[in-house]
Amino acid sequence: MTAAPESAGTATDITDEEIFLSHVGGKLEVGLTAPLETVRDLSIAYTPGVAKVSRAIAADRDLVNQYTWTERLVVVVSDGSAVLGLGDIGPRASLPVMEGKAALFKKFGGLDSIPLVLDTNDVDEIVETLVRLRPSFGAVNLEDISAPRCFEIEQRLVEALDCPVMHDDQHGTAIVVLAALQGAVRVQGRGLGALRVVISGAGAAGVACANILLAAGVSDVVVLDSRGIVESGRDDLTPVKADLAARTNPRGLRGTTADALADADVFVGVSAGTVAHEAIASMAPNSIVFALSNPDPEIHPDDARRHAAIVATGRSDFANQINNVLAFPGVFRGALDAGARRITENMKLAAAGAILSVVGDDLAADRIVPSPLDPRVAPAVAAAVAEAARRDGVV
Amino acid sequence: MTAAPESAGTATDITDEEIFLSHVGGKLEVGLTAPLETVRDLSIAYTPGVAKVSRAIAADRDLVNQYTWTERLVVVVSDGSAVLGLGDIGPRASLPVMEGKAALFKKFGGLDSIPLVLDTNDVDEIVETLVRLRPSFGAVNLEDISAPRCFEIEQRLVEALDCPVMHDDQHGTAIVVLAALQGAVRVQGRGLGALRVVISGAGAAGVACANILLAAGVSDVVVLDSRGIVESGRDDLTPVKADLAARTNPRGLRGTTADALADADVFVGVSAGTVAHEAIASMAPNSIVFALSNPDPEIHPDDARRHAAIVATGRSDFANQINNVLAFPGVFRGALDAGARRITENMKLAAAGAILSVVGDDLAADRIVPSPLDPRVAPAVAAAVAEAARRDGVV
Repeated sequence: MTAAPESAGTATDITDEEIFLSHVGGKLEVGLTAPLETVRDLSIAYTPGVAKVSRAIAADRDLVNQYTWTERLVVVVSDGSAVLGLGDIGPRASLPVMEGKAALFKKFGGLDSIPLVLDTNDVDEIVETLVRLRPSFGAVNLEDISAPRCFEIEQRLVEALDCPVMHDDQHGTAIVVLAALQGAVRVQGRGLGALRVVISGAGAAGVACANILLAAGVSDVVVLDSRGIVESGRDDLTPVKADLAARTNPRGLRGTTADALADADVFVGVSAGTVAHEAIASMAPNSIVFALSNPDPEIHPDDARRHAAIVATGRSDFANQINNVLAFPGVFRGALDAGARRITENMKLAAAGAILSVVGDDLAADRIVPSPLDPRVAPAVAAAVAEAARRDGVV
Repeated sequence: MTAAPESAGTATDITDEEIFLSHVGGKLEVGLTAPLETVRDLSIAYTPGVAKVSRAIAADRDLVNQYTWTERLVVVVSDGSAVLGLGDIGPRASLPVMEGKAALFKKFGGLDSIPLVLDTNDVDEIVETLVRLRPSFGAVNLEDISAPRCFEIEQRLVEALDCPVMHDDQHGTAIVVLAALQGAVRVQGRGLGALRVVISGAGAAGVACANILLAAGVSDVVVLDSRGIVESGRDDLTPVKADLAARTNPRGLRGTTADALADADVFVGVSAGTVAHEAIASMAPNSIVFALSNPDPEIHPDDARRHAAIVATGRSDFANQINNVLAFPGVFRGALDAGARRITENMKLAAAGAILSVVGDDLAADRIVPSPLDPRVAPAVAAAVAEAARRDGVV
């Protein structure tokens, strides 16, 4: 396997003590971009000087993008209802994750980012709160909000706010899955169009993966939820799943995971569940397995490799890590650089293409995506996303 | 006059170009407190390591103060309805001021601070928004919100949130005015008790100045609004002013600024208006004039000095600058250091005492308060405020 040089130390040798110690006081701080050492500095940054800047913005409100930090500020918003694999642990307990996310925005996207966690799970209240706060930020990264509320919250915010809004658990995951799948089929010398893809999980990530794969030209997508194949004959589907059933499963399959995986080419696990070895073994030759549940993949990659040609996980200690950090810093950076008012499907597809392009000639079965720390990724994604935004006319 | 060495360059030589240039991109940035260079770093700060911290907070929510930045995070909140002397310029135009305030919190208080500006002037909505955001921060600095809404918003937030909340235009100003007045009377060898104090302005700062002076032992306070002396015989008083009338004006004065100032000892101008030279001339011997309107004092300090023994303004280019930055960084730092659930009257009085204590032996008619850049002020204020919080049992 190709281990990135940075992964020499993996999570396995990290003690709890080290983790907690490194979190004392949190992971973020606010810094000043200009000195505040003299009365003169104070007269520029605060009264009386600042009044001129405020007056200018009052006269032309677009100047706020030029003279404040909002144009490069991403708020990472959560209600703590679906945090990592931990479930509904509430806004306070979600904060370390949101601080980490904000830190990644800074490190990889060069964007400033702050966590805003909300003491409510009510869709109306969450939307309303961000609408009221709109002048405070430049973009919204929704994070760890449970399905199906996450779909409505994102949709309503996209409509209400004139700025980039993205639920990363949906679209960040989907973008990287698409990039990885494009890399995998390129290694195998085939295309996306004829693939049979099975997605295990019909939550935030599963729905977004299905959508982006359909948009990218995969025609045979089958989605599984905890009760089996999501198909139109079922009477227990939520509106989101009913919509999904109408757009997927072209062969009209019914039944279980085993029924879906027989002769399938691709398994994408985003379910926090497990998948039987036999089901993976029943897939078509040269099968591709993305077991993305974290920290425990749906099937251990060593086991999956006995049956599949290409295997990826969400973990840093195996080859082919499918990590959202490959997508979101560059997606938001590109959207903000372009002054995009929203994030379109083409911008997401462009992001996936850019991630793949960074692997370039190094593409191999155990290197279908770049390392999450590869510094070339975010700039490439940002440039492609900004270009797509301009092409789509959303700037 | 005693110019602090830092004030060698004053606002007068600063060009508009320099002000706007220094504001490009805003005045704040987010920084990382730990490295994110390797997969190992990523595994500690983000998944999978962060899950352990989130789990710990889910089990004991007080740990959020230990393992996130919230315990030292002050949100600077405004709706842009009363910004500096500019009035209701809206949330976007207020942002440069709020960024400046956040920068001062960092520079002088060592606290992290972010601006949150709200696209609503509705009291219920502002309170509700901050209640929903409660898990995101450690304290609330309300800023540039117009009276009388500012009184209700502050009061309701103090009741709703278990953390320090302070409207700085009220209490920051009041604390520094009290410190300055204590300094002035000490220079003159007299006490506060027998003073006749006239406060011009019954908005946020005027009401708070009246309250803190009464609490500090001044018994004769007369407040003026745009229609004259605030007194119980008037039928045009808001509830806030009616309450003020009941607690001030012990000699039952009626009439104009001139009526109030005849034989008064102290004039405190927080009105953004002007005061006639004749009225200042009619004050008692050894009078004290604080003309705090910015950028144009109620009376030019050179003119005031012809009649008054001690003169202070809000400007950096004259002696005795009464600047809120002497108070708020230390007040919030002390409250957060002590883990205070609110900011009490005693904490404010303690802050004033600490500001005065820093001047120490240098006390003089042209040095009744320390320089706003004196690095000893915030630590002294923080220590005094924290001690008062513990004494008051609000920790």
